[in-house]
Amino acid sequence: MAGKKEKTLHYLFEDGLKDIYYAEKKILVALPKMAKAAQSEELAAAFEKHKAETEQQVERLEQVFQQLELQPKGKKCPAIDGIIEEGKEIMDEFKNLPALDAGLLSGAQAVEHYEIARYGTLMAWAKKLGLDEAVPLLKATLEEEKKTDALLTELAETTVNEYAEAAE
Amino acid sequence: MAGKKEKTLHYLFEDGLKDIYYAEKKILVALPKMAKAAQSEELAAAFEKHKAETEQQVERLEQVFQQLELQPKGKKCPAIDGIIEEGKEIMDEFKNLPALDAGLLSGAQAVEHYEIARYGTLMAWAKKLGLDEAVPLLKATLEEEKKTDALLTELAETTVNEYAEAAE
Repeated sequence: MAGKKEKTLHYLFEDGLKDIYYAEKKILVALPKMAKAAQSEELAAAFEKHKAETEQQVERLEQVFQQLELQPKGKKCPAIDGIIEEGKEIMDEFKNLPALDAGLLSGAQAVEHYEIARYGTLMAWAKKLGLDEAVPLLKATLEEEKKTDALLTELAETTVNEYAEAAE
Repeated sequence: MAGKKEKTLHYLFEDGLKDIYYAEKKILVALPKMAKAAQSEELAAAFEKHKAETEQQVERLEQVFQQLELQPKGKKCPAIDGIIEEGKEIMDEFKNLPALDAGLLSGAQAVEHYEIARYGTLMAWAKKLGLDEAVPLLKATLEEEKKTDALLTELAETTVNEYAEAAE
């Protein structure tokens, strides 16, 4: 634990890196379960695709740890734990029901927005700290998360919610 | 608790409404503490302004409950609890240190993105369900949350992170 004097922006950056590293690892475990639960093939495919991206995102974080000469290490992140817990509740409660996919999408978008917030912050801090090698890595992931969120919005507006509504 | 047959998109919508109602109430309690802790006057003012907006957002949710002929009621939301818990950890750990405001901003942006995700989903569901009176209320709040997030990004890029970095 750093002393009071060391609790600078750099310390916050390292702390944030550990937080999102923990979160990405949790997301990697959740995504295959979400893909398996999804009723629409398009949604299952979107989750599978995002799993492959998430693996790359974990690697990018490991590169940033390496740039800072740190061992990659997670730090318990109650926010992602809470978001994933809500997703699990929906998976249990709506199992095999037409509204399940709409619920899965909702949970996935909460995950994406958590990541967009965290990567946006980390990128801003990396810029201020002059961590020029870290910036493009964080930016690449941020752009991927935004694209994934847009894809999920599109799926929500086309197939998934239509299906849930038609089954009312 | 609704039976299996009633677990439709409408049920998901009501459930989501209760989730965000609980979250907004928690945010209302957190914001004055964040304003008090903030070192920069601009950041404190941004939190105060958002508190006033949040009060209106709670009222809008109460109107949507009323449209559905439901009593306004929250439902425990582990996601917002986790996000707020992380914010509290930063407030404690960085008390009176130059990096505190950067940490507060980071927490506030995680809150905003949670709300953006949830209101985006609720608006999409309200449209599908033909809840035409609810849509503009949810949209008004969604737009406010997006504006607040943009304002916080601006503050991060100007004063707050500069200050934290200068103090390194």
